Amino acid sequence: MSRTAVKPDARAKLLDAALLLIRSKGYSATTVDELCAAAGVTKGAFFHHFKSKDELAVAAAEHWSQTTGALFVTAPYHEHADPLDRLLGYVAFRKTLLQGDVPDFTCLVGTMVQEAYGTAPAIREACARSIAGHAATLEADIQAVIDARGLSPDWSAASLALHTQAVLQGAFILAKAKGGASVAADSIDHLYRYLELLLRPAQGHSTR
Amino acid sequence: MSRTAVKPDARAKLLDAALLLIRSKGYSATTVDELCAAAGVTKGAFFHHFKSKDELAVAAAEHWSQTTGALFVTAPYHEHADPLDRLLGYVAFRKTLLQGDVPDFTCLVGTMVQEAYGTAPAIREACARSIAGHAATLEADIQAVIDARGLSPDWSAASLALHTQAVLQGAFILAKAKGGASVAADSIDHLYRYLELLLRPAQGHSTR
Repeated sequence: MSRTAVKPDARAKLLDAALLLIRSKGYSATTVDELCAAAGVTKGAFFHHFKSKDELAVAAAEHWSQTTGALFVTAPYHEHADPLDRLLGYVAFRKTLLQGDVPDFTCLVGTMVQEAYGTAPAIREACARSIAGHAATLEADIQAVIDARGLSPDWSAASLALHTQAVLQGAFILAKAKGGASVAADSIDHLYRYLELLLRPAQGHSTR
Repeated sequence: MSRTAVKPDARAKLLDAALLLIRSKGYSATTVDELCAAAGVTKGAFFHHFKSKDELAVAAAEHWSQTTGALFVTAPYHEHADPLDRLLGYVAFRKTLLQGDVPDFTCLVGTMVQEAYGTAPAIREACARSIAGHAATLEADIQAVIDARGLSPDWSAASLALHTQAVLQGAFILAKAKGGASVAADSIDHLYRYLELLLRPAQGHSTR
């Protein structure tokens, strides 16, 4: 049996282990030994694929972008004909992802950058690319709403797209503090309400 | 000269060192040795005051609540006569706090809980108390706006107060990723805009 046909290689197993362990206990607290044990690979295999834990972290951020990117690109919110419906559909989709335990639905790169931004520039940059790259997938729809409504806002499509990610990242922190997803769901609802009030004021008023 | 009259005691120096170091590099990456060096105290002094690094973290969260609490309780936004003006003044005040380097304006408890929520219940609870306690200082003003306008919203004052903290925590993560405060300022502006649209719809429309 060829190795590649039967099982994921050590590199892929280490990256998957990184996603789970780092989201569970943070980046600094996750050791190379724990990553190897969780992945079922030897330390030799680890250092065959990665020069250091920091190099694995950069690869894990890229792996995260790819796997979550594939989830979003095939998600049903793209099927809406209207760009605002797509944007709101994205936010509603994010709420449906609040499933399972806290490590299951929280964000790898938001966790890593919180710790490593000052000490590991390569990790900071990889996390920034991941967050900004995902935010950018929302910009065209936001700009289309701005154009369709003839708005000249004092904020940009890029800034609103990044704000959606700020809300999500902060919602995850509150979920960690409270020990559950419901507080995060509430913040996602507030984000949804903001987008409606900002972009669909005529009918978006749900404050009664 | 008595020791207490001349300089802060070792405990206070360790707590101040914790605020700086943990916001700079995260909780797990901060060692007891580094805390002692930054505080200028011996390891013996550390373990005289704290049984463990986790015990210091819980005390640091309480110290954080007290020092930031004192800052907020004396802040000028309380002087507004109108509760919505006080709430918006709070958000504007948070924006003015985005000064200095990233460790200077980001949040100790948001950083610690991100790493320790799953492995150190006492730290998680201390961080949750700090965030919830601060959010609670906004609830009365939000409820006063709801009552004054006769609203029956499908969200609670408590949930909106917590949402303000989610936005701030997420804004700090984006600031860490981007390496500067301006992205956080943009998210605080979006929060301000949301509160105006939600609570002052007649005149709050700043989307043109």
